[in-house]
This record gives sequence, C-alpha cells and structure tokens, in this order.
Amino acid sequence: KNILIVPGDGIGQEVTEVGKSVLVKIAEKFGHEFSYDEALMGHVAIEATGNPLPDETLEKMRNSDAILFGAVGHPKYDNDPTAKVRPEQGLLKMRKELGLYANLRPIKLFDELLSASSIKPEILKGSDILFFRELTGDIYFGEKGRKNDNNTAYDIAEYSRYEVERIGRKAFEAARTRGKRLMSVDKANVLETSRLWREVIQALAPEYPDVTVEHQFVDSAAMLLIKDPRRFDVVVTANLFGDILTDEASQIAGSMGMLASASVGDSTGVYEPIHGSAHDITGKGIANPLASVLSAALLLDISFGLKEESDAIIAAVDKLLKDGFRTKDISDASTPAHLLLNTQSAG
Amino acid sequence: KNILIVPGDGIGQEVTEVGKSVLVKIAEKFGHEFSYDEALMGHVAIEATGNPLPDETLEKMRNSDAILFGAVGHPKYDNDPTAKVRPEQGLLKMRKELGLYANLRPIKLFDELLSASSIKPEILKGSDILFFRELTGDIYFGEKGRKNDNNTAYDIAEYSRYEVERIGRKAFEAARTRGKRLMSVDKANVLETSRLWREVIQALAPEYPDVTVEHQFVDSAAMLLIKDPRRFDVVVTANLFGDILTDEASQIAGSMGMLASASVGDSTGVYEPIHGSAHDITGKGIANPLASVLSAALLLDISFGLKEESDAIIAAVDKLLKDGFRTKDISDASTPAHLLLNTQSAG
Ligand SMILES: CC(C)[C@H](C(=O)O)[C@@H](O)C(=O)O
Ligand SMILES: CC(C)[C@H](C(=O)O)[C@@H](O)C(=O)O
Repeated sequence: KNILIVPGDGIGQEVTEVGKSVLVKIAEKFGHEFSYDEALMGHVAIEATGNPLPDETLEKMRNSDAILFGAVGHPKYDNDPTAKVRPEQGLLKMRKELGLYANLRPIKLFDELLSASSIKPEILKGSDILFFRELTGDIYFGEKGRKNDNNTAYDIAEYSRYEVERIGRKAFEAARTRGKRLMSVDKANVLETSRLWREVIQALAPEYPDVTVEHQFVDSAAMLLIKDPRRFDVVVTANLFGDILTDEASQIAGSMGMLASASVGDSTGVYEPIHGSAHDITGKGIANPLASVLSAALLLDISFGLKEESDAIIAAVDKLLKDGFRTKDISDASTPAHLLLNTQSAG
Repeated sequence: KNILIVPGDGIGQEVTEVGKSVLVKIAEKFGHEFSYDEALMGHVAIEATGNPLPDETLEKMRNSDAILFGAVGHPKYDNDPTAKVRPEQGLLKMRKELGLYANLRPIKLFDELLSASSIKPEILKGSDILFFRELTGDIYFGEKGRKNDNNTAYDIAEYSRYEVERIGRKAFEAARTRGKRLMSVDKANVLETSRLWREVIQALAPEYPDVTVEHQFVDSAAMLLIKDPRRFDVVVTANLFGDILTDEASQIAGSMGMLASASVGDSTGVYEPIHGSAHDITGKGIANPLASVLSAALLLDISFGLKEESDAIIAAVDKLLKDGFRTKDISDASTPAHLLLNTQSAG
C-alpha cells in the first residue's frame, strides 16, 4: 500500500509528521508494508513552483492508495482579496480532480474532554454525529467573477440530481449502520438548489425504510447543534452548509484539534484534520496532533479496511487522554505542567 | 404615528398581539397617539388571496411609519419543494420592495437567563453582540432556476460595491457607539462575492480609525461564536451567512423566543422576532411573546427615536424575568408552576 503524505502549510507540517509516525508504528506492530512518498501543496507549493497544486503532486496523488493531508492556507492571501493565485485553489482542484465528492466528518466526543467544550457537559454527553458534506459541487465550483466594471461580483451555486443522489446514498447507508436517523440540511425555503436537494433526498427515502429522515433549514440546524446535539445522528448537506456546520460542531468535541475528516469518492481517499494551517500558532510546538493521528485511523479504516488497526489508534488516543495528557487547546488551569504535551511528544 | 401590524402565520399571530398590547400601554403611559392598522401576509394571505404579499398589504406598508411583524411560513410548503407559491416569497418581496437592506439583530443576554443556555454561564457572561445582516442581496435575490431538463438547479449570489458599502457604513457607525470592534464575516478564500465584500470593508476602515476591524471566514466565525462569544461586538455579514449565524447566536440568549430584529433601509422599518412561525407549538399558548415585545421596543427606539419608552419596555422584561416568570422555552424543572406563563398572561 502506497501512502502519499501532503503536509501543506503552517501547522499542517507539524501535525502530519505525527500522523505519519503513527502509521509507521501501526505497520510495524501489525506487520504491514506501507510505502510513503511526499508532495507539496498550498502556499509552500506556490513558493516553490508558482502553482498551489503542481502537476507532479496531482500525479502522485492519482497513483496513491490513500493520502494523509495536513492543511493549506496563508494569511498573506487572506489579507489580499485581489490575489490571483491562492493556496485554497490547490485544495479545491484536488477535490475536483480526484472526484472526492463525499467528505465525512465524525464528531466524536472523548469522555475525558466533556468539560473542554464551552457547551454544558449534560447537554453534550452521548453526542455522536457523522456529517456527510458534499465536496465537489455547490457555490464552490460554479462560475464566479466580476461584471459592471469590476463593481459587481457573482458566484453561481449549482447541483445536479446525480450529485445529490450519490452523496445522499452514502449518508443513508451510513445511517443504517448507526442510529438510523438522517438529517438533511438545506435552505429549501429560499434556494432552488436546496429544493432540488430536498426532492432527491425525499425520493431516496423509500429505499431506506429503516432510516428516519428529517429535513431542517440550515439556520435552524445551526441553532439545534448547540441546543440539542444529541438530536443529530447522520447529517447530509451541501458543500457550503457543511463547511459552516462542521466547524461549528467542532465545539462539541471540545476543540478542532481533535477532529479528523475523510474525503472519498471515485478512487483514492484524502484524510485530514478539519482545522486549518493556523499560522498564529505555527512553529510553537503547541498544535494538537490528535486530529492528524485520528485522520490516520480513518485512513486505515476507510481506504484499507483495517478496522482493528484503526481501533487501536483510537484506543491509544483515548488512553493518552485518560492518562491526563493534554495539548494547550484541550487543557485548563488544572492540568499539571508535566502532562502538558508539545506537538512532538504527543506523537 | 401610524403603525402597521402584520401578524402573519402560526405563533406570529399569538406573539404579535402581545407586542401590540405593549405599544398600546406605552402610548397611554407616555401620552403618545399611535394609530394601528392590520394586514395579511404569508400562508394566511395565500389562503385569502392567492398571493403571499397582496398589493393591499404592500400599499399599507409603504404608508406606515413602522411595521410590527410576526412570522411567515407553513410546513405544507416545506414538505413540497415543488410548490410554486410560498409564504417566504412574500417576506423576500417585502424586504426588496421596501428597501430593507439592513437587518439588525442584537444578541443581548438577560442576566436571569444565563443558565437557560446550553453554553456554560462562565463562557457567556457579559456577551453582547449586534449583528448587521445584509438583507436585500446575495443568493437570496439573484436569478435561480433549473436547466438540463429540470435535472440541474442553480442560484446566483451577487453583490455590488454599493450594497456592501451601505451596510458596512451602518455597522462601522454602530461599532463607534459600542465596543469599537467590528468583525466582518465572509468566505473570501472561496467566493468572489466575499472577496468584493472584504475589499469594500477594508477600504472603509480608514474612515473609522477608532474602530478595530477583524475579518473572519464564516466557518471560523460559526465556531468562535460558541467557543468565545465575548470576542464579538458588532458583526457585519452577507444575507445567507447572517441568516445562519444569527440563528446560531440565538443560543447565547438562551432561546430564540427572546430575540428581536429590526429591518431598516430607505423608508419604513420592520420589527420582528427572529423566530419563525413554529406551527408545532401554534395554538398551545406556550409561545414566548418576549421577542415580539422586544421588537416593539426596537421599533420605538429606531423608527420613532423614543429611547425612554424603549428602555421602559426592556426594564419591564428584565423585571418580569427577575420576578421569576417564565414561558416554557426558558423555564426548567425548578420553575414553580405559578410562575409559568402562557402567551397571553406574559403580555
Ligand atoms: C480552506 C477552505 C477552502 C476549506 C473549505 O471551505 O472547504 C476549509 O474550510 C475546509 O473546510 O476544508
Ligand atoms: C423564512 C426565511 C426566508 C428567512 C430568511 O432566511 O431570511 C428567515 O429565516 C429569517 O431569518 O428571517
């Protein structure tokens, strides 16, 4: 099995190194042969080649069995809305070129971190959500531009029946293996893309009679996530709504530093933390590497079918937390200094 | 002064009656002459006339000095994504026709309700946020439709420099009178409309040197609202992002039943709860009327400049809560039955 490591920018580099070291240990322990290659993407790729997703990287991605990914981005571009070349273009191009239409984001709460969240423990306890965010359509990929002498900007959101159906099926199937409840989130009272979305999900429902389907408007879903997170089991939603809701839902898990995601579709899969490049903490050694470690676990489970190996990683994270070890983002005043980890020692 | 009452659908009818009764009492007490008229909108207007915003209603709106509004919507349309006539069309048409481009949503925490939220009191305490949501542009009002034999749906998001500038100025000016911090929320790493948005806000900033400006991506803002609500003072954002973030932020105030909003622009202003028609609790007498009461307070303050009268209403709400009275949404197991209000008695 051939694993491509793409650390990207900022803390992406720090945490992915830890994620990779866990894959190396698992291979040793369970007697697997994984081979590793590495490639550039994002700001570091722009600096080196002028291109946020160089052809060489894309080629290596296509030839990989799975990709462990870090993060891309740089404040330089955020502060310059007129920049023509941007790290995120590489990310979006990768998703489109590799056909990664389904982004899975499990929001799993480690018991030890119940109190790390800003939400009350009694509201959180027992929450376990799996998001399916559509990843290759919507307003991310439609035509966009300027008109009227650069004075008007536009972005086109678009969905086809086929695109909604394939992510819808993945979500229904996952719901079957879990709590058998699916929430589809849209804004069908305003958007035509959402009305198509709702039509398609409604049409699929009879094929999955064992799954209870609920439709929520995105504004209401954003509110319910905080008010009553246990109401959620599997959630399926469009690209933009998924972007917003999954970041919001990260607060259920106490920190973004704990959350992994899998992007899958037609061929290889990409596994990455949901956090970004976080240049404000880069180089300080305080980034929480557990999202990358849990991304490695997702990789083994979903792309390689190695459930036992994946569970071993999750159990190790659980033990680490039970033993009281914390990175800064999940620690508090009561954490003793000798249990406060830096990025490397956590690995 | 001429006030138009538009109760709309569901609990809109129940709570607006209470909001109106408060206006009547204030007029009595402070010696003002308000005249009232009433008009249909939403599902009830469709039933009566086939049109969610009848011409007669629009005409009355144009001739009013301010409008006290309830809510529109009905599950019937939500479950039928193919319905051609929908209550929300009336709402959107009203916003556009009356030029209500600025939607103000103050998220104010009543001390007594600190514990009603699912967020920890120590995280919430002292939060005080004022949202400026743009209300007549974005993906709400661009062209939308189907193509490819009805198999593809699209929605166009659009913003002009002028539209961003006028809401931006309102937000900067409000920030001046408060904590002097403005957060502008966009998705400039993906959307062209957001890049224009950010350009315009950046260009306005030097005119307000006393205000500190921060730009956040919408996914990050959705996360920060829960993690650290005190970081927010004034927020300015586009129509769709504002819809999502303000509903989410309602959880800071404990319940949507406590939050009022003002939509203002070129002429008359519309004052309404941020909650919807809530058909699931309609007719039970358990709707919290305080959002409508606080909408009446906003109306007096913003449209009529009657600050003392407005403050008297807010003080009365505060006293009601301090005396222990609660509607169901903000009560808990410890609320004694004789303090549990129904919609009418709360008024
Ligand atoms: C960096 C950005 C383009 C990206 C997105 O919006 O998809 C990120 O927020 C994510 O969620 O992976
Ligand atoms: C009913 C709906 C169209 C409306 C909106 O999205 O603007 C509502 O959610 C609101 O926030 O006023």
